[in-house]
Amino acid sequence: MLGFAMPKTLFVRHGRLHYFIREVLKRLRLPAPHASKVGEALVAADLAGVEGEGASRLPFFASRIGSGLINPAGDTRVVHQERATAIVDGNNAMGHVVGARSMELALELAREHGVAAVAARNSNDFGMAGYYARLALAEQMIGIVISNAAPAMVPTYGTRAMLGSNPLAIAIPSPEDDAPFVLDMSATATSRAELEDAVRRKVRIPTGLALDSSGEPTRSPRTALEAMMLLPLGSKADTGSYKGYGLALAIDALSGALSGAGFGRELAGAEGKHPAVAGIGHFFLVIRLRAFSPWVKFRNRFKDMLRLVTTSPAHGAPRIYYPGEAEFAIEQERRATGIPFDKGVASELEGLARRLDMRDAWDHLVEGKK
Amino acid sequence: MLGFAMPKTLFVRHGRLHYFIREVLKRLRLPAPHASKVGEALVAADLAGVEGEGASRLPFFASRIGSGLINPAGDTRVVHQERATAIVDGNNAMGHVVGARSMELALELAREHGVAAVAARNSNDFGMAGYYARLALAEQMIGIVISNAAPAMVPTYGTRAMLGSNPLAIAIPSPEDDAPFVLDMSATATSRAELEDAVRRKVRIPTGLALDSSGEPTRSPRTALEAMMLLPLGSKADTGSYKGYGLALAIDALSGALSGAGFGRELAGAEGKHPAVAGIGHFFLVIRLRAFSPWVKFRNRFKDMLRLVTTSPAHGAPRIYYPGEAEFAIEQERRATGIPFDKGVASELEGLARRLDMRDAWDHLVEGKK
Repeated sequence: MLGFAMPKTLFVRHGRLHYFIREVLKRLRLPAPHASKVGEALVAADLAGVEGEGASRLPFFASRIGSGLINPAGDTRVVHQERATAIVDGNNAMGHVVGARSMELALELAREHGVAAVAARNSNDFGMAGYYARLALAEQMIGIVISNAAPAMVPTYGTRAMLGSNPLAIAIPSPEDDAPFVLDMSATATSRAELEDAVRRKVRIPTGLALDSSGEPTRSPRTALEAMMLLPLGSKADTGSYKGYGLALAIDALSGALSGAGFGRELAGAEGKHPAVAGIGHFFLVIRLRAFSPWVKFRNRFKDMLRLVTTSPAHGAPRIYYPGEAEFAIEQERRATGIPFDKGVASELEGLARRLDMRDAWDHLVEGKK
Repeated sequence: MLGFAMPKTLFVRHGRLHYFIREVLKRLRLPAPHASKVGEALVAADLAGVEGEGASRLPFFASRIGSGLINPAGDTRVVHQERATAIVDGNNAMGHVVGARSMELALELAREHGVAAVAARNSNDFGMAGYYARLALAEQMIGIVISNAAPAMVPTYGTRAMLGSNPLAIAIPSPEDDAPFVLDMSATATSRAELEDAVRRKVRIPTGLALDSSGEPTRSPRTALEAMMLLPLGSKADTGSYKGYGLALAIDALSGALSGAGFGRELAGAEGKHPAVAGIGHFFLVIRLRAFSPWVKFRNRFKDMLRLVTTSPAHGAPRIYYPGEAEFAIEQERRATGIPFDKGVASELEGLARRLDMRDAWDHLVEGKK
């Protein structure tokens, strides 16, 4: 087969991908239930089209487990529980395990109290914040999830990355069969995943997203990735960057300072050239919708709200979307036709399987391809 | 005295300003305790330098009370209370009364449960969201306050104002004597107050803040004020505007749909050319810090976090600030030297006093001027 005719993309079935991730993580000494939980979070990201938080991260996590920076056998522990609040110690386990366990606890407390807050410390990068927020939806609860992260944001008027991109996710129950409302945003104007995507597509990025290593604005996604000095949401002082910067600080106060996790530049070892134990923290808020309103009443009002906004006049797009709609559409498609991996990711995953002597698991994954 | 030598600014003492506002509102048939509460909220805004939410709004509120659009005798009522949650019906009273009462209830519930959520409906514009969030600080609690508002935000890819500027305020207890951490932001890239300020200073605004009435970007603050079609925080789709837009939707879901208040364009009567009963809703979240961490431990960690960020290298400003610092500095100064009113605001307030036959209250206010 000629090189230029090689398929650029491998499609895999999501069920088989979950199996593959689980087997890899078990080989890396995660207990089976933990391996399964991480698999669910990673597959959810790949299904939603958030590739940067999906299976492509597996080699990164495997490397950190191999270097002793993540504890594969770590188990979460509730170190403090008082009324509608709790603190979870993640024991340096995979962040996806800490995230799911903490959210389950928050849901349990919200069932009893109507609203609940759980802070987690000693955790790791938990991937897509929206995944944990969405866990609230099945019980018609509202999930709000935030996390700190490795330094990547330059404060307004700053010249050095002092805060993480610090995600904020809000999931609100939507009418049955509609796309769930899931806002999943970072406090930065762009993200590592968006920059990587621009590199792949060979396009320049707009100004107002990132600085180069000397603190000057850059339109090169490659330069931006090397420097990792992203601007806050709002870009500059005169277009509101103090809001993105302020959000990142507030998120770090709750996820880091309140939980007893690390914060700010203490998290520098979570990514980048000098890896160390991450010490990341998260914060989970759950609001029991039915403590306020009968489900049907809320559902109808919320449906009206979304309908009015999304059917208002649009320009530059076929219509106006609400947060979560695009990801929901991608998920429907990928459940039907498979999850695409570009060649680079596929070969990294294959290499990981080879190093772990798991050729069979890899073959099983790619056999299921379309 | 020659015209050009006329003082452009009237300075008044904050205690006398509170007295003046209280007397005006009592004349407008607000019960004395309500008049006093509104006065506290308006004076707090003027002290913090947020003039657009301070006493300058008094003629607007007086006019709405006069037209029967705000119920001066309205009293708030807790219509539902369940564990750590409650719904307050504002009875179309002044928003500042509804806001303060709802926050007091949230604080009470958080004392008991560690975290609490209160939704309010049938309310009015409550001014500066940060004022209510700050009420949590005296008890070392974290206050999070959001509200919907008259339509002013054009969704990403939209051409019509469908959502409010929908404020979000987060107050986090800071070390004693330091400026309190108060993030008080709208979900839009700019605000009515910032545009009015640009008109006064005769400067153009950056692109990325607002559209004109035909949906084209404008750099004229006057044109922007006439159209009131503000862009979401993040400005455009490729610089993250879906985040500001998504935040506004989530805030409306909680403040509007969940509480049973109006939402989106239903709030069009709250401002603008066709006034009607506002039907605004708010949402208040309180987290009892000491349910998670001993105060001293949190205080020291949060102090470290803020110190590390604010002492990192700066460019274009003397140093990096955290949210609330600037307002705190202005407040210290204004407590000492008085609150400045520009001539336009002063003459509107004087006119209001004259119409209400309250010349004495006005004289008392301006006697106290520096």
